[in-house]
Amino acid sequence: MTLHLDDLRVRHLGECHHDSPLADLVADKKTSPHYVSEGDRVLLDDTVSMLDRRGMAPGDLPSFEAAGPRRKIYFDPAEVTAGIVTCGGLCPGLNDVIRGLVQELTVQYDVKRILGFRNGFRGLTARHRHDTVDLTPDVVRDIHKSGGTILGSSRGGQDVEEMVDTLVLRGVNVLFVVGGDGGMNAATNLAAAIRSRGLDIAVIGVPKTIDNDLPYTDQSFGFQSAFAQAANFISSVSIEASASPDGIGIVKLMGRHSGFIACYASLARNAADVVLIPEVPFRLEGPDGLLARVERHVREKGFVVIVVAEGAGQDLLAERGLLQGGATDASGNAKLGDIGLLLREIISAHLTEVGLSPTVRYIDPSYAIRSVTANAYDSVYCLRLAHNAVHAAMAGRTETAVVRWRRRFVHVPMPLIISHRNQVDPDGDLWMSVQEATGGLVAPSDGRKLERPGVPERPGAGVVAG
Amino acid sequence: MTLHLDDLRVRHLGECHHDSPLADLVADKKTSPHYVSEGDRVLLDDTVSMLDRRGMAPGDLPSFEAAGPRRKIYFDPAEVTAGIVTCGGLCPGLNDVIRGLVQELTVQYDVKRILGFRNGFRGLTARHRHDTVDLTPDVVRDIHKSGGTILGSSRGGQDVEEMVDTLVLRGVNVLFVVGGDGGMNAATNLAAAIRSRGLDIAVIGVPKTIDNDLPYTDQSFGFQSAFAQAANFISSVSIEASASPDGIGIVKLMGRHSGFIACYASLARNAADVVLIPEVPFRLEGPDGLLARVERHVREKGFVVIVVAEGAGQDLLAERGLLQGGATDASGNAKLGDIGLLLREIISAHLTEVGLSPTVRYIDPSYAIRSVTANAYDSVYCLRLAHNAVHAAMAGRTETAVVRWRRRFVHVPMPLIISHRNQVDPDGDLWMSVQEATGGLVAPSDGRKLERPGVPERPGAGVVAG
Amino acid sequence: MTLHLDDLRVRHLGECHHDSPLADLVADKKTSPHYVSEGDRVLLDDTVSMLDRRGMAPGDLPSFEAAGPRRKIYFDPAEVTAGIVTCGGLCPGLNDVIRGLVQELTVQYDVKRILGFRNGFRGLTARHRHDTVDLTPDVVRDIHKSGGTILGSSRGGQDVEEMVDTLVLRGVNVLFVVGGDGGMNAATNLAAAIRSRGLDIAVIGVPKTIDNDLPYTDQSFGFQSAFAQAANFISSVSIEASASPDGIGIVKLMGRHSGFIACYASLARNAADVVLIPEVPFRLEGPDGLLARVERHVREKGFVVIVVAEGAGQDLLAERGLLQGGATDASGNAKLGDIGLLLREIISAHLTEVGLSPTVRYIDPSYAIRSVTANAYDSVYCLRLAHNAVHAAMAGRTETAVVRWRRRFVHVPMPLIISHRNQVDPDGDLWMSVQEATGGLVAPSDGRKLERPGVPERPGAGVVAG
Amino acid sequence: MTLHLDDLRVRHLGECHHDSPLADLVADKKTSPHYVSEGDRVLLDDTVSMLDRRGMAPGDLPSFEAAGPRRKIYFDPAEVTAGIVTCGGLCPGLNDVIRGLVQELTVQYDVKRILGFRNGFRGLTARHRHDTVDLTPDVVRDIHKSGGTILGSSRGGQDVEEMVDTLVLRGVNVLFVVGGDGGMNAATNLAAAIRSRGLDIAVIGVPKTIDNDLPYTDQSFGFQSAFAQAANFISSVSIEASASPDGIGIVKLMGRHSGFIACYASLARNAADVVLIPEVPFRLEGPDGLLARVERHVREKGFVVIVVAEGAGQDLLAERGLLQGGATDASGNAKLGDIGLLLREIISAHLTEVGLSPTVRYIDPSYAIRSVTANAYDSVYCLRLAHNAVHAAMAGRTETAVVRWRRRFVHVPMPLIISHRNQVDPDGDLWMSVQEATGGLVAPSDGRKLERPGVPERPGAGVVAG
Repeated sequence: MTLHLDDLRVRHLGECHHDSPLADLVADKKTSPHYVSEGDRVLLDDTVSMLDRRGMAPGDLPSFEAAGPRRKIYFDPAEVTAGIVTCGGLCPGLNDVIRGLVQELTVQYDVKRILGFRNGFRGLTARHRHDTVDLTPDVVRDIHKSGGTILGSSRGGQDVEEMVDTLVLRGVNVLFVVGGDGGMNAATNLAAAIRSRGLDIAVIGVPKTIDNDLPYTDQSFGFQSAFAQAANFISSVSIEASASPDGIGIVKLMGRHSGFIACYASLARNAADVVLIPEVPFRLEGPDGLLARVERHVREKGFVVIVVAEGAGQDLLAERGLLQGGATDASGNAKLGDIGLLLREIISAHLTEVGLSPTVRYIDPSYAIRSVTANAYDSVYCLRLAHNAVHAAMAGRTETAVVRWRRRFVHVPMPLIISHRNQVDPDGDLWMSVQEATGGLVAPSDGRKLERPGVPERPGAGVVAG
Repeated sequence: MTLHLDDLRVRHLGECHHDSPLADLVADKKTSPHYVSEGDRVLLDDTVSMLDRRGMAPGDLPSFEAAGPRRKIYFDPAEVTAGIVTCGGLCPGLNDVIRGLVQELTVQYDVKRILGFRNGFRGLTARHRHDTVDLTPDVVRDIHKSGGTILGSSRGGQDVEEMVDTLVLRGVNVLFVVGGDGGMNAATNLAAAIRSRGLDIAVIGVPKTIDNDLPYTDQSFGFQSAFAQAANFISSVSIEASASPDGIGIVKLMGRHSGFIACYASLARNAADVVLIPEVPFRLEGPDGLLARVERHVREKGFVVIVVAEGAGQDLLAERGLLQGGATDASGNAKLGDIGLLLREIISAHLTEVGLSPTVRYIDPSYAIRSVTANAYDSVYCLRLAHNAVHAAMAGRTETAVVRWRRRFVHVPMPLIISHRNQVDPDGDLWMSVQEATGGLVAPSDGRKLERPGVPERPGAGVVAG
Repeated sequence: MTLHLDDLRVRHLGECHHDSPLADLVADKKTSPHYVSEGDRVLLDDTVSMLDRRGMAPGDLPSFEAAGPRRKIYFDPAEVTAGIVTCGGLCPGLNDVIRGLVQELTVQYDVKRILGFRNGFRGLTARHRHDTVDLTPDVVRDIHKSGGTILGSSRGGQDVEEMVDTLVLRGVNVLFVVGGDGGMNAATNLAAAIRSRGLDIAVIGVPKTIDNDLPYTDQSFGFQSAFAQAANFISSVSIEASASPDGIGIVKLMGRHSGFIACYASLARNAADVVLIPEVPFRLEGPDGLLARVERHVREKGFVVIVVAEGAGQDLLAERGLLQGGATDASGNAKLGDIGLLLREIISAHLTEVGLSPTVRYIDPSYAIRSVTANAYDSVYCLRLAHNAVHAAMAGRTETAVVRWRRRFVHVPMPLIISHRNQVDPDGDLWMSVQEATGGLVAPSDGRKLERPGVPERPGAGVVAG
Repeated sequence: MTLHLDDLRVRHLGECHHDSPLADLVADKKTSPHYVSEGDRVLLDDTVSMLDRRGMAPGDLPSFEAAGPRRKIYFDPAEVTAGIVTCGGLCPGLNDVIRGLVQELTVQYDVKRILGFRNGFRGLTARHRHDTVDLTPDVVRDIHKSGGTILGSSRGGQDVEEMVDTLVLRGVNVLFVVGGDGGMNAATNLAAAIRSRGLDIAVIGVPKTIDNDLPYTDQSFGFQSAFAQAANFISSVSIEASASPDGIGIVKLMGRHSGFIACYASLARNAADVVLIPEVPFRLEGPDGLLARVERHVREKGFVVIVVAEGAGQDLLAERGLLQGGATDASGNAKLGDIGLLLREIISAHLTEVGLSPTVRYIDPSYAIRSVTANAYDSVYCLRLAHNAVHAAMAGRTETAVVRWRRRFVHVPMPLIISHRNQVDPDGDLWMSVQEATGGLVAPSDGRKLERPGVPERPGAGVVAG
């Protein structure tokens, strides 16, 4: 018998005449990388050569170059000096990536010399360029058992020409940059300077973001380890809140522009009653406002647990003059106001006013999340990402980031990685799951009618095929 | 500036004139669901409607129906009695799935009556059909904090007509079957019997397999939790082996036909020196045989760690008359010989013979792996899988399994799920990663030239598009 | 051969003529419950009857009544209605204690009716007295898998007569109070009111304190689970600090009057460079002041990790007008100023002033520590404590607390438990271990010459033997 | 008001006229280090100098020398070369002890040279004596994050004179032996040989036993970590057993002569229904035999969980000819028969015979228990034990073991440590707790009437004071 992929027993399909209680939830949703609509179909095959075999001519479909080892390589391993630098905030798996790079370079390619630069791009400045770590398989053998990065990290740019000088002086012809927005941006500039000097130095990016806000990436490394740990804190606050009469638990999680950690961590324990993320604006006042909802929940259940991403509700802070206009950190990110403290104060005041006796438990566990070791999945992921980064470098790629897309490792031009952000799609299936799991009391229902803050362009928009 | 997905800086590409030390590793590999070849490209978009927008006419490409809530549904929630049954061996996440089904049915669809049948399909027999659990949100609130399944499980089929009678007698019109090969097979037969009686009962499958051997599935639920725990045991045995002179550590892991757990768990700690899986045959004797390799490793490093999937080396057991020909367990699976004990004995004898004093540490931790709770990732996965199973049932699907493919939740006809197995592709990138990570000493190098045992047909083979 | 306990091979003893580098550390120390001096000896036997057998007449030595089951009991189990109430802040093991009480009462004594009062003593007020939970073995079976307390808790006293009325109205003749200072105090008052009304109601205390500040107690239940979790946060902050140039990590831990958690958590990871506790005052300025030491450490090692108990340095806050004079919380505890925030600000300012570029990582993880589940040890401890509390009640004790002293479970009169606090002895061996482990840079060396804050009377002081 | 330690409100005491349902449990129990009888009292103070102050003359009471730093020391630190060796089976905390020794020797005493011998006493043989590890604070900084021992271990004795030669040749004048029965015995012989040669080499023991079978020791280091991990396996087997109809779960735990791990691990999860230990013999047949009890439990609850220490039931194996008479392992321990496999077979056969369909889940997780890292408590304990071992060595003690007794660190003559074993006292309060927690179905009730296997002399017996 030949089986058909859609040989579904849907004999009842034509007879679906009941309105779904979820109809509103799916009303306006459109197909996107974050949502498959009713009626959509998902491809079985995902490589262009597979489509070709099916008689398609998919030559002009947007697609990525596959990562992996090549039969012929550009660099003679005997002449390679590799450099590794880690930049930006901590993220689970940094040591796993360093370890994977070193092991692949030495064991498979027999590269003899690998330098670890200290404290991010600061280690490539003239002042610090000689303070490097010699990285060998022995040095890195057990580093994955510790969180953080053995190389140290820092934020902020450095003089590009000075950094190129360092690479030349230290004889580095392959540089691996493990970093976020700032790091990838600096790496792009560095690669451009290298190119303009006509130097033969490859720059390969291993993009890092604990917020999962990278485009063209299934899930960034360390993300699962991070949200697993975040979920533990939601449990803690939930236990605290539920043990006090009129208990209010608030957890502020990472997520400057993207609420992925807040969403996944909330789903993982299913203990959150309200989830607030930057992508979905909300009001405080009014019958559908946050305060009314929180009050209702406390009156009904005796307590409430609120998960808020640090970038949520910045408009509310701005209204109250609680934002430092124009202030930025060393990576150039706008300084956020503290939404957690604002919620603590406002909710506490409101509930007291309406006659309740709230006990508020507020925690901001970011440092204790960023610094965990990679879990087993992320450990495998980092190892394989590192392998593929080495293959890319040895095969002559440069200004290239190595990522995973639809479970395949691929090469993405570095500028694309910083072209826009991955965000939780308010019309996507993740946010829908959050809404389902929290029983509706997720974000004020009119939130979606408010103007959305800076939605970035979607992946693929502005991208021209091949 | 418009960015291009393949705007890679590969100016060196034409000049790749060095042979890669990994050239042999990639020599004969072909594009497959498990491997993207050099030169392949990976699609940016994966839904048919997205391709349509690009001007393609992908109507006849193999694809799956998207899962998710529908605007119109088939069943009137007020008239639904749902049943849930869990079958086969334990797997992390079973309680999460039960919990997700109950919460979605009650909170979102307002279904009032949900019966949990006990101990797998045994609970649908005449003798046990009245011994059910009433499942409510209160009952399931904390069950995800325990491994296993609160409903119990069992292997083995039951009389189909008797089971249909049970559904009718208990008024069940939507049945969720969480189970593996055996369970999906029985569910398919049950659905056929329902159809032949003209009954209006939907049967929805949530496929379960700790071995990750399901086709059309990114990774089965519970798999990450399982291999994470398996990795802990590899660490244990590695610590034991390395603390003894001539220490031999052997861990036997699950994997009757598919060595995924062995591969991922080995990569997660990077502590295994030899990985043996059913898909890659190996010899014991000869210069490239397992014994010579193990001996070499012990002489060089002082110890060796071997990870073996339970289904590996069955040919070696057969040669020695250690297989019970034709014996099967209650699920109809052929009884395996114990490869772990054979290796322990043979390796110990060989090393003693060549003058070493081996101390062997052997563990078979399967029960301690299957029974762990779902980690945060699997917890989210199970919840969303359960949500989608409920949507499928309410929308009138039947004989349908709900799975995730390329990170999308989709509907797959139940018979397809049991049409063949997902296996580690000896030409795929996972096995390549294992070979890279273990420094080559993974499986005897001539292994791939031995005849492979029962390679199942590949996904998509024999499948005709819509 | 008869062995002697002091048959030590100390033939060199008379020849000890080298000054120990640790001589200063032990210079003025005296024997106490927290320190055994050079020349002291530790008794082999610890019960009075054992001493009797040795020919001693220890009848007038201070000693405790042994806990445990009695052959004859006071209450007829068939007529017992037990009540359970949990008070004060959360602590790991509360649910284990509740579970142990319920299981022992029902399984061993066949008590039929057990009421759980909600939210501490608030649940015994007239307004809330009917909102109780019926506690059965089924209800409590899995509660130890969650932190917190299923009964809820609260701070603050309630009207004593109203509470006695509740006990009478609900028919309770055995009340178990699991609580801290406040709870034991209220229980003592409650017992006095019961006595003065001539009622036959037993009040048994299971003292709880996450700070380990109970006298007459080896270590309070939950303490090990708490400091284990606290140690994880020290690791987090250490990873953060060491990954930044001039990184400063500060963890504020629980410990209003007693720095046990800070000390043990610091020893557990050995990652703290400075440990500040309420019992040992310190200066900020001067060559031996905290700022100079922190600066020195950063210059030498590149970073520093500071662990501070919440009650440390209150004198520094007072000097700066940062204490709310006389303010107290609902339990009557004086409100503390925030030493963590003060240190963050002052250290950051100082290091910036001297030309460093500090990156400060500050966390206050108290809620995430208090809410963890009990570890295996505490789980056993809580179970056995609960068993002994039930035995005490059934045997007719009242106003009695059940604790563990020198690894024996004993009965202590309730007023004694609140007579003074257990503190880290600056002359004891624990603080000496902290000083050894942190290489001297623990607290400013002149700290001990500063006046000590409110050292409580020592255990046994003011106690007259039986 | 002066408080009295026994100012207990026991006004009801004289009126205790109900028989306790637990009367049988306490009927014949006598005061011992493991039990305080009804009427016993526990001393408040535990040092001899404290008793002196009370006007007692306790000079001839059995007691231990206190451990800790001395003002004057025997060795000149500048002339010390320390050696460290770890022997016998793995135990959590070995690396913590090594780390503590190295840190204390270098940081506090400024000892410059510390040698780690490899693989136990094998490393002191002529053949291996030059293969040592130089131990420095840098080398040991992170070793506590891994289980096992970085030095390796081995069982079995070596030639004593050869070992003394090694110490002389390598210039070692202080040797730390971390080991169990075998190791302490060998260390005692080594010290005797050193003494007879008139050499000035101190031998200090840090006794290690995962079974907690050391006398004069509160709980041996690593024990808490071990039973915590063991408890996880009991949970696993409990989850497996409870998920199968007629499920039988059997966990075999360590415990050759002492069932402490079985008892504590069973109490920690309270999931065991039957606990079998070497100290309490049991019958298989008869109405009170194990088989009848297991059958009864399965019929009532649907499953049963059995925890068995490896040394239990050896008489049953002997009856069946399943013991290798006289066989011993390299440490000289008698080889045990496999009680776990015997139980699996016999219980399975019996239940099948009586018409049940048992599914048996059997695990033997010893290697996965021994190899865990020390938990926070054990980590602190190991550190402080190591500190005290260093103090003992520097102060001129030799042939001395450092242990903790009644929460004090003390010195014990090494021969005493191997004079007898600590065992679970069938009349002690630990076993009583196990009986209470498992609801009576712990061991066959007639077990205590069977002859007990080799009960060792009690601590203190044969010991003459001062």
